[in-house]
Amino acid sequence: MSVLRFLTAGESHGPTLLGVLEGIPAGLALSEQDINQELARRQRGYGRGGRMQIEKDGVRILSGVRWGQTLGSPIGIEVTNRDWENWQENMAIAAPEQNAKSVAVTRPRPGHADLAGMLKYRTGDARNILERASARETDMRVAVGAVARRLLAHFGIEIYSHVIRIGKVKAIQVPSDLRELRERAEASPVHCADVDASRKMMDSIDAVQVVGDSLGGVFQVVVHPVPAGLGSHVHWDRRLDGCLAQALMSVPAIKAVEIGLGREVAERHGSQVHDEIFFDQEGRERDDAFLWRDQRWLTAGGFYRRTNRAGGIEGGMTNGSPIVVQATMKPIPTLREPLFSVDIEDLRPTAAGVERSDVCAVPSAAVVGEAMVAWVVASAFMEKFGGDSLPEIAARYEEHLLSLCPQAEIQ
Amino acid sequence: MSVLRFLTAGESHGPTLLGVLEGIPAGLALSEQDINQELARRQRGYGRGGRMQIEKDGVRILSGVRWGQTLGSPIGIEVTNRDWENWQENMAIAAPEQNAKSVAVTRPRPGHADLAGMLKYRTGDARNILERASARETDMRVAVGAVARRLLAHFGIEIYSHVIRIGKVKAIQVPSDLRELRERAEASPVHCADVDASRKMMDSIDAVQVVGDSLGGVFQVVVHPVPAGLGSHVHWDRRLDGCLAQALMSVPAIKAVEIGLGREVAERHGSQVHDEIFFDQEGRERDDAFLWRDQRWLTAGGFYRRTNRAGGIEGGMTNGSPIVVQATMKPIPTLREPLFSVDIEDLRPTAAGVERSDVCAVPSAAVVGEAMVAWVVASAFMEKFGGDSLPEIAARYEEHLLSLCPQAEIQ
Amino acid sequence: MSVLRFLTAGESHGPTLLGVLEGIPAGLALSEQDINQELARRQRGYGRGGRMQIEKDGVRILSGVRWGQTLGSPIGIEVTNRDWENWQENMAIAAPEQNAKSVAVTRPRPGHADLAGMLKYRTGDARNILERASARETDMRVAVGAVARRLLAHFGIEIYSHVIRIGKVKAIQVPSDLRELRERAEASPVHCADVDASRKMMDSIDAVQVVGDSLGGVFQVVVHPVPAGLGSHVHWDRRLDGCLAQALMSVPAIKAVEIGLGREVAERHGSQVHDEIFFDQEGRERDDAFLWRDQRWLTAGGFYRRTNRAGGIEGGMTNGSPIVVQATMKPIPTLREPLFSVDIEDLRPTAAGVERSDVCAVPSAAVVGEAMVAWVVASAFMEKFGGDSLPEIAARYEEHLLSLCPQAEIQ
Amino acid sequence: MSVLRFLTAGESHGPTLLGVLEGIPAGLALSEQDINQELARRQRGYGRGGRMQIEKDGVRILSGVRWGQTLGSPIGIEVTNRDWENWQENMAIAAPEQNAKSVAVTRPRPGHADLAGMLKYRTGDARNILERASARETDMRVAVGAVARRLLAHFGIEIYSHVIRIGKVKAIQVPSDLRELRERAEASPVHCADVDASRKMMDSIDAVQVVGDSLGGVFQVVVHPVPAGLGSHVHWDRRLDGCLAQALMSVPAIKAVEIGLGREVAERHGSQVHDEIFFDQEGRERDDAFLWRDQRWLTAGGFYRRTNRAGGIEGGMTNGSPIVVQATMKPIPTLREPLFSVDIEDLRPTAAGVERSDVCAVPSAAVVGEAMVAWVVASAFMEKFGGDSLPEIAARYEEHLLSLCPQAEIQ
Repeated sequence: MSVLRFLTAGESHGPTLLGVLEGIPAGLALSEQDINQELARRQRGYGRGGRMQIEKDGVRILSGVRWGQTLGSPIGIEVTNRDWENWQENMAIAAPEQNAKSVAVTRPRPGHADLAGMLKYRTGDARNILERASARETDMRVAVGAVARRLLAHFGIEIYSHVIRIGKVKAIQVPSDLRELRERAEASPVHCADVDASRKMMDSIDAVQVVGDSLGGVFQVVVHPVPAGLGSHVHWDRRLDGCLAQALMSVPAIKAVEIGLGREVAERHGSQVHDEIFFDQEGRERDDAFLWRDQRWLTAGGFYRRTNRAGGIEGGMTNGSPIVVQATMKPIPTLREPLFSVDIEDLRPTAAGVERSDVCAVPSAAVVGEAMVAWVVASAFMEKFGGDSLPEIAARYEEHLLSLCPQAEIQ
Repeated sequence: MSVLRFLTAGESHGPTLLGVLEGIPAGLALSEQDINQELARRQRGYGRGGRMQIEKDGVRILSGVRWGQTLGSPIGIEVTNRDWENWQENMAIAAPEQNAKSVAVTRPRPGHADLAGMLKYRTGDARNILERASARETDMRVAVGAVARRLLAHFGIEIYSHVIRIGKVKAIQVPSDLRELRERAEASPVHCADVDASRKMMDSIDAVQVVGDSLGGVFQVVVHPVPAGLGSHVHWDRRLDGCLAQALMSVPAIKAVEIGLGREVAERHGSQVHDEIFFDQEGRERDDAFLWRDQRWLTAGGFYRRTNRAGGIEGGMTNGSPIVVQATMKPIPTLREPLFSVDIEDLRPTAAGVERSDVCAVPSAAVVGEAMVAWVVASAFMEKFGGDSLPEIAARYEEHLLSLCPQAEIQ
Repeated sequence: MSVLRFLTAGESHGPTLLGVLEGIPAGLALSEQDINQELARRQRGYGRGGRMQIEKDGVRILSGVRWGQTLGSPIGIEVTNRDWENWQENMAIAAPEQNAKSVAVTRPRPGHADLAGMLKYRTGDARNILERASARETDMRVAVGAVARRLLAHFGIEIYSHVIRIGKVKAIQVPSDLRELRERAEASPVHCADVDASRKMMDSIDAVQVVGDSLGGVFQVVVHPVPAGLGSHVHWDRRLDGCLAQALMSVPAIKAVEIGLGREVAERHGSQVHDEIFFDQEGRERDDAFLWRDQRWLTAGGFYRRTNRAGGIEGGMTNGSPIVVQATMKPIPTLREPLFSVDIEDLRPTAAGVERSDVCAVPSAAVVGEAMVAWVVASAFMEKFGGDSLPEIAARYEEHLLSLCPQAEIQ
Repeated sequence: MSVLRFLTAGESHGPTLLGVLEGIPAGLALSEQDINQELARRQRGYGRGGRMQIEKDGVRILSGVRWGQTLGSPIGIEVTNRDWENWQENMAIAAPEQNAKSVAVTRPRPGHADLAGMLKYRTGDARNILERASARETDMRVAVGAVARRLLAHFGIEIYSHVIRIGKVKAIQVPSDLRELRERAEASPVHCADVDASRKMMDSIDAVQVVGDSLGGVFQVVVHPVPAGLGSHVHWDRRLDGCLAQALMSVPAIKAVEIGLGREVAERHGSQVHDEIFFDQEGRERDDAFLWRDQRWLTAGGFYRRTNRAGGIEGGMTNGSPIVVQATMKPIPTLREPLFSVDIEDLRPTAAGVERSDVCAVPSAAVVGEAMVAWVVASAFMEKFGGDSLPEIAARYEEHLLSLCPQAEIQ
């Protein structure tokens, strides 16, 4: 079985969301707060509707952690639905009384799982599908990703995201320093590191709201520093690029995933696409303590690149440069002016049902994207380093970083 | 374990490529010719170098098939390397004689697995990495995909591909009829269904060859007809869009994967992105025999769309419209004017090593992409239908198609 | 990924046990009561200590079920620990106040996970291991198994168990009729279908209790009726016998698993080990309705055996005879007269720690064994039949049963 | 996905057996001879029929190894069938000429996969089943296991087996020294370490041969030294005892698996079942070099047991004592006096078909059992240590062994 595994459960308006996360080593400091702060990040964002307020519950960790540290046993996480009392009849677990009246959702919404799900699972009530296909499912992914992220953070591996496009507005002035990028993106209501573009994005969200339409966009996730050697070229399903693509494309509404230059590689000549390899000769005289502070050495042991068109991945493996991935989110399908649909009861044309009302969810999706990337990188990390406790893994990690420096053998 | 599984093995210049494919039901007609014709398709393409000729071996099926039909047992496939005699010393399996001289490849090539692989697997000889990270690895993927494709073809599900961009040249005049699209793409030396664009693509390949550079591009894979209800929304790793993205991004040199409109969804308003739902009322009066011939009914039981911006997937499931995915391939990294690298022996700057010399491999990559898509769709098909023999699955498939037509319950 | 999956979480004295169960089709009637009755069965049994009373909480289903029917989405199950308030300090999730005093368990108990777990996970406190390695972990397995069992029951497949040995006392008079066997076993305080042996088993439990020792035993699990064709011979990890053995041996304290005659096959000549094959010629004249009532026809379509030494499995597949497996449980390792151990703090000899005080848990283990068998058989069932909703699977199941009758083709 | 994976392919009388083994780290010395010597061990054994001579081909390694060392890429292994020319018509891969006459095997043999397989895969020719369900399938398991074994041997972990029962004859005088045990077992024609019992076993094989019957038996597999901490208690499918049980029970004809005392634990009181824990105080004064030579220290760091009733596994994990497992094999089902069966063509009673003629295959099964145990232990080893190259894993392994010694922290 996989080294790391998780399952989540929970309907959008059901009593509880659950997650069970298995394979995290013992000895990792982990608190509910670590998870809640990621959930809070997902719930922000200009252009989100009122439901966000209701969702603002925090998690409860139910197992796998004792006295603030992981045990190595499965970590159970729960998010209670504060609005459950309004839904407990419609979403009752138990079979209803005989005279209970059911109000089936029979008008599938284009762009949602509704119709395909009704045909697959053979139900006449779209609620049986949409409750699980809801964006709220990603809440628990963020919680699971928060744990993966804590593991990576212990080894100094950090994950950033920022929105680079909403509708027709693109971010242009993006700081190259990652910490600055993060600060600016976190400060922006649309999670965008370009202040000007942020303002224009909000304007276009406002404009679209007026006409009852919705907007998509593009976000980028960056992992840095990340050591060379995660993933593998030896079999298709061990390649890190493939795993990242699966994880990001599995986020609802994502329709494109790019790594590094992404689609732009199609336009360039080969000489403008690859990242030439250099070696930092001077680093050989530096003292060890310095090496650890210098990210370049940390991640590829003296080898470095002056460009990162590959997005940090060559041959399905990390090469020590930052992992850079982009995902494109489609506009939310529920519109104030609903799209055409068909009522499944009488098969006549009708307006699609309406369930919620965000205009733009790209900033939230970026946080979900971070979580999925954290999960994939943590999985590759655990496959590379194995182990059951943090001290054990720390020793292995240090040994790996030292092994990346070939000069040891040369001098 | 998964319903369908495969493993491949083999170094590019080793004696043999192997594949073992497990989970294919009994009773499927399968011949070596079925596989060879797909391999031959991969080996064509304007802009490929001389090695293609050497590779033109066919497969041998070694197990899992008897008297032209699958047995349900694992299918073993072998492709022998005709050039092995020239490599048997350099790539010897056995430990060499004491005075054998090794000629290690010590100049890792940017854009390849070389350096990341050397750091990961701790070898000073890039050959130990590049032999497996070679494009030739995809040969066996095509073979495995050919078997998956045969399974799907038995149920009328077909897979097409065509190149829609090479360098700066885009295909514009693409036929909407899929069979015509296929015919034209197959007839084009660059696998492009637009005759004009084909010519321009060849011109740009010629031009780039003169300057010693290389070109990437974009291809599209289409699956049609495909029934609604493959994949699922219930857990991230059951979503078909994610699985397709993984499979395509795992093809060497692919840097972007898009589904349906792909990255274009970021620019459009929501009202221009989703596919409204209609129902074919008239179809209800048609006779059954007709229904089966009408693809619209076949795949979503009377529900249909007038657009396919979603690329046939909503909520991680097929919705009955054609699956449409796009992948972007970077230019081949080996250039006549080699890029900068570092010699791993002395850590001094050097020119990158040169292993082969194609200018553009996008047409071949499209065929590999088809194979990966075939694999993913066949896996989802087998998860939906289960079963161990074709007659059994055929009955289930027919029942599923009938279930998609809700009017049966209404009349 | 596998068709059916589950993960559980929860420490023995933590706040909650959790289970997430994924892959169950839509449309299955499922209630908390279905699960609670299995949990209650596990908690009975002569020779259990006082903790059982505390454990008598019921489950709460948190997701995957609506209005009494499964949705096809993951099923979340929770068992709250009623005794949590007494443990919330010792088992606190959050990091403690600075002056909190920890009382580490430092005397690992022979026969438990304690020492191996401490060495593996590098902890000096055995509580960090024993809380998860507790028998209470099996509570959630029983809950998960109860869902699998409901699925199988929908198709008439039932699972029985009975204790056939405790200490030196063996069951001898066991009814051959399975329903009678079940009734008697359920009525027995030691879950044994032989009334005389039941009494002797209780006597020996009493006797052992007096001397402060403990007893193990053997239980049998039977699945009947079960159709031919579950599992497979084609790859080692598809063989049903192997999967059953894993599942049963993974139950804490199980040290032997046998199928059919089990170890006795070593003593017999081949002519006394295999089950000759017969065909019910007369059945060919019977009407269909009758066939369905006659289990023999149901499960192997007219082929039958006069013996079942194979325990219903040949070549890793069900052959239509009842699946019969046996598991041997060791005596509980915690004894009133504790065994020798070593205090991990000072490495000096000491008496092993004492955590609880059952004398014999074989009747409970039988119920856990049923759950694991239910899980494995349901997994094989879903691999054979696939599908996402009960009506769909029902049609496939019926078709399979009909396919087992070869006379259709002959007449 | 799992850290280690393998798939095998091949029909008994097909052209070739194939295996692909994935996940083995780079840098392991591996030769065809390493594998052939294990295959040769499987093919010995008193009571085997004539087919063994035909099978005496060796393997060819086709990939994953270069200059005598693994590359980290998938290892492909092939065993060619020397007798293929006699079978190439009956077992042809390609569809036959129209007038080719098929000779279907229509009399399923009791105790084999034949009938269950025919019903599952819906074939009227038992050959389509029996060719894969043949004992020859285990040949490739032995080859795969030989690679796993090489990996373990690199770390000093060795695997032994010996036959402890054939029919009614039990081994009694078994040396406690494992190397002596191995030498004696290897020298015995029935792979039994008790010279007297060996002779009696051969006598009983001779006697049974005279009457045309067959014999089963019991073998034991031992792994030693093996470090504490492989496997886990945290989830059912991570428990090493369960994985061992699956692997052994999946060997054709195995009907019982026991760990340590196995079924005998049912008879004993708890005080006679568990292995008390001791610590070697004197070892603390010994010098490091000595510690490494002393297996007791090596595997559990000073903690030791005076008994090994648990068979080296507590809580699903290795505890540092030798792993001891037993498997019981049923007598070969093909008898000179064939059992009753039914002809599938006319459904009339008939004698079962006859395919081969060994009297007793327990010595061979022991070698297959070793291979499966090697696979499971190597998988657990790789999950514990991770890593991609031997030097990397060696550093981790050494660090783990040192961590087992708690006195470092005490002094």
